[in-house]
Amino acid sequence: MSFLESLAARASASNSLLCVGLDSDSQKLPSHLPAKNRVLAFNKAIIDTTADLVCAYKINSAFYESEGSAGIEQLKQTCDYIKSNYPDLPIILDYKRGDIGNTNDGYVRFAFDYLGADAVTVNPYLGAEALKPFLDRADKGIIILCLTSNPGAGEFQNLEVNGKKLYEVVAEKVKSDWNNNHNCLLVVGATRPEELAKLRQLMGENFVFLVPGIGAQGGDIKATVKAGINKSGQGIIINSSREIIFASSDRDFDGASRIRALKTRDEINEAREN
Amino acid sequence: MSFLESLAARASASNSLLCVGLDSDSQKLPSHLPAKNRVLAFNKAIIDTTADLVCAYKINSAFYESEGSAGIEQLKQTCDYIKSNYPDLPIILDYKRGDIGNTNDGYVRFAFDYLGADAVTVNPYLGAEALKPFLDRADKGIIILCLTSNPGAGEFQNLEVNGKKLYEVVAEKVKSDWNNNHNCLLVVGATRPEELAKLRQLMGENFVFLVPGIGAQGGDIKATVKAGINKSGQGIIINSSREIIFASSDRDFDGASRIRALKTRDEINEAREN
Repeated sequence: MSFLESLAARASASNSLLCVGLDSDSQKLPSHLPAKNRVLAFNKAIIDTTADLVCAYKINSAFYESEGSAGIEQLKQTCDYIKSNYPDLPIILDYKRGDIGNTNDGYVRFAFDYLGADAVTVNPYLGAEALKPFLDRADKGIIILCLTSNPGAGEFQNLEVNGKKLYEVVAEKVKSDWNNNHNCLLVVGATRPEELAKLRQLMGENFVFLVPGIGAQGGDIKATVKAGINKSGQGIIINSSREIIFASSDRDFDGASRIRALKTRDEINEAREN
Repeated sequence: MSFLESLAARASASNSLLCVGLDSDSQKLPSHLPAKNRVLAFNKAIIDTTADLVCAYKINSAFYESEGSAGIEQLKQTCDYIKSNYPDLPIILDYKRGDIGNTNDGYVRFAFDYLGADAVTVNPYLGAEALKPFLDRADKGIIILCLTSNPGAGEFQNLEVNGKKLYEVVAEKVKSDWNNNHNCLLVVGATRPEELAKLRQLMGENFVFLVPGIGAQGGDIKATVKAGINKSGQGIIINSSREIIFASSDRDFDGASRIRALKTRDEINEAREN
């Protein structure tokens, strides 16, 4: 099964478009966790209490790299844990890579061979020729940065290129040239519902968007669902990270995460029904 | 001393603008090397035979990530080895990161706190607001992708934005807004000498360019030096990776690397004198 097939199957089975971001910054974990492998211990608890509520986990590499090789080891063990215990749950490695082709081979090996991720985020700036090692992987999801959720995203992404915005050019290229293996998705921030609605029109009914930026970044769930969803009530993955995983720093942090994840999933589903 | 000061001092002391890229892909190392920590063993040998010939080492993270936590451990040990044995040699971590600000904090910790790198490469697509955790580090070098060396670089980088190319817009923004801490450099591929010459004019005499793409990628040394150098015969770092570190796969691979590095340094210096 390809990533997009697994994702659709899982979204149906869990009745959820919620993706939880395991941005498990070791400096923000509950203080009662043991010092050794605390990121892994934290992740296992969050996964066990939220797995039935999500269509995927997104793991941002930065929060593991910050701890060096010990962090990478816990990233690997987190992926192994999900694959062993929740084998139908897709793993998105959010690492926003993009280098020349020869170098991207190394990043491909990290994501798919070492970690066993099902999808990755990549940066378009070097072009499709450079991203070929990613785009060639028909079994995986290749999620291309289009319009990001940060306040300053427009500095480049909104530049005018022949009457279009740069982010629209990215989307059009993905649509016309990059998606021959039907494995491409786009990142569009929840902070940009108007643009998301336009991109849904441009990319067509079957295309899938990864939408970060609800929760701590301020994106609105109703507006996001209305703008992004396709006619089947699918076609978006809505990510929330900090608001869910750091819902509490008490001993019952995982229970608090479950309550927040359930609330978010249900809010998304309510918006889907309207 | 800031990165740019260390770099200038080292370039003068070694009479070299050559940067050697430790793109030490474990799948390409000489077969006689021991299985355990072979990347580190390889790097130590290359470093010991080339250190007096270079102004910096550039280490591309992808080739270490591909080996997972063991690769990251050897990346760390490589940095430690350079810092202990060649303390005046700057280390550039080539990892082309770029995420939202909160996440870039993690990448900053990886590069500067964990590895102790002196400079990093970053991707401009999310804008200066997102890159603030990097740009705020006045002591470090922040090397922004501008015009890359890969054949397909122009797909986005040459797009027309108000009569300018996108890569020129990147350069202008760096010049006018991003470089308040005087810590910015730009990546411009050796495969683009005409554009490099224009960028030298735009960015002024004191600006420094990191120029990859000679050697395996086909960039010409003479044309690069002529296009990029400032009036003091400095202002560029010319990187060569594969051609130098994989000069031979024999037992004498490090000796072969030295010969190739010496030849490259001297070719650069000849071009500087003309």
